[in-house]
Amino acid sequence: MLRLYYAPGTCALATHIALEEAGAPYEAVPVDFGSQAQRGPEYLAINPKGRVPALVTESGTLTETPALLCFVAQRFPAAELAPLSDPFALAQAQEFNSYLCATVHVAHAHGRRGARWADDAAAIEAMKRKVSATMTECSELIERKLLKGPWVMGEQYTICDPYLFTIGTWLEGDGVDTAKLPRIMEHRRRMLARPAVQKAVAVEGTQLP
Amino acid sequence: MLRLYYAPGTCALATHIALEEAGAPYEAVPVDFGSQAQRGPEYLAINPKGRVPALVTESGTLTETPALLCFVAQRFPAAELAPLSDPFALAQAQEFNSYLCATVHVAHAHGRRGARWADDAAAIEAMKRKVSATMTECSELIERKLLKGPWVMGEQYTICDPYLFTIGTWLEGDGVDTAKLPRIMEHRRRMLARPAVQKAVAVEGTQLP
Repeated sequence: MLRLYYAPGTCALATHIALEEAGAPYEAVPVDFGSQAQRGPEYLAINPKGRVPALVTESGTLTETPALLCFVAQRFPAAELAPLSDPFALAQAQEFNSYLCATVHVAHAHGRRGARWADDAAAIEAMKRKVSATMTECSELIERKLLKGPWVMGEQYTICDPYLFTIGTWLEGDGVDTAKLPRIMEHRRRMLARPAVQKAVAVEGTQLP
Repeated sequence: MLRLYYAPGTCALATHIALEEAGAPYEAVPVDFGSQAQRGPEYLAINPKGRVPALVTESGTLTETPALLCFVAQRFPAAELAPLSDPFALAQAQEFNSYLCATVHVAHAHGRRGARWADDAAAIEAMKRKVSATMTECSELIERKLLKGPWVMGEQYTICDPYLFTIGTWLEGDGVDTAKLPRIMEHRRRMLARPAVQKAVAVEGTQLP
């Protein structure tokens, strides 16, 4: 039995959806960010980074969303969540997920977690002011170039889709005009029609835009 | 024949080393950051993100270091650069590389590319002042918890090693006291003894600390 540690509104939703899609045996365990449980000794023993998601497996604990998504795909191959045997196609999927992780998620984090990168209050406010522009720029690259349609990688639903959907739930809150992103919005609607997405969203109590 | 676009001093060195280790047929093509060639129309046609590395393959162009490293390992399996058939072990390697990409590289980038996340000059200066602290914190996590030794994943040299080596070349410049990181420094020495590392470093003209 796998154990996924998550908090609502975080990128853990992507792995949560993937586990559902894979039909994996797992338990979803909430970490209470309200009481800062992610920095408490109990959780730090599970994940010393003090963040979610963390996935406890029979072999040990894994973190970092792109790694978790690939793990779910490879561990439950019958679900066909990634083109595992095609090096180029798999690299394309990982390229997309790496962009979400290292560029898009990072851009978003400057609106809430600016203290990670500066101590000065005015600097943290300056970071907040730029989030709408950076998230718009990232979204436009996805809309115009990266999202092949109907799914991220084209005809095949993959581990890229739950991740785009998850980060996509942050766009309106980040001041992105989603009326200008019709393909990403169509992707959101398609995702919301999937039972795995509905279940993960319901369990986490995800606030949808 | 693969074509790797790189600039000296960037994370492209990791993929460069991996290609050498794999014995891959490839050509390394420098992109002149001095003349801002990465933002010129010729390079943007190759990589619309305007960054390096980019790897042109017979199937198309790939970007994002964690994806490129996994691609090299899977495309040239005889080099055994990743535990490809073990979902947990592969996820551990990807977890490490994802941490380097989305946390450590991002921390470093706040010293040089702060304009990505704020427009205000004082804010950009405030970001620079914190780089030494954030890079020290990241390095200590690697030193104490993530680097198994002698290689990142333990006895087996993997795609994590060129990536750690590459980001490690930035530590002194970022104000990190490497005297307190004996295991990372031992890893650097081991890497510098490898012919593949020596060759990539010589071709790029990498400035070593």
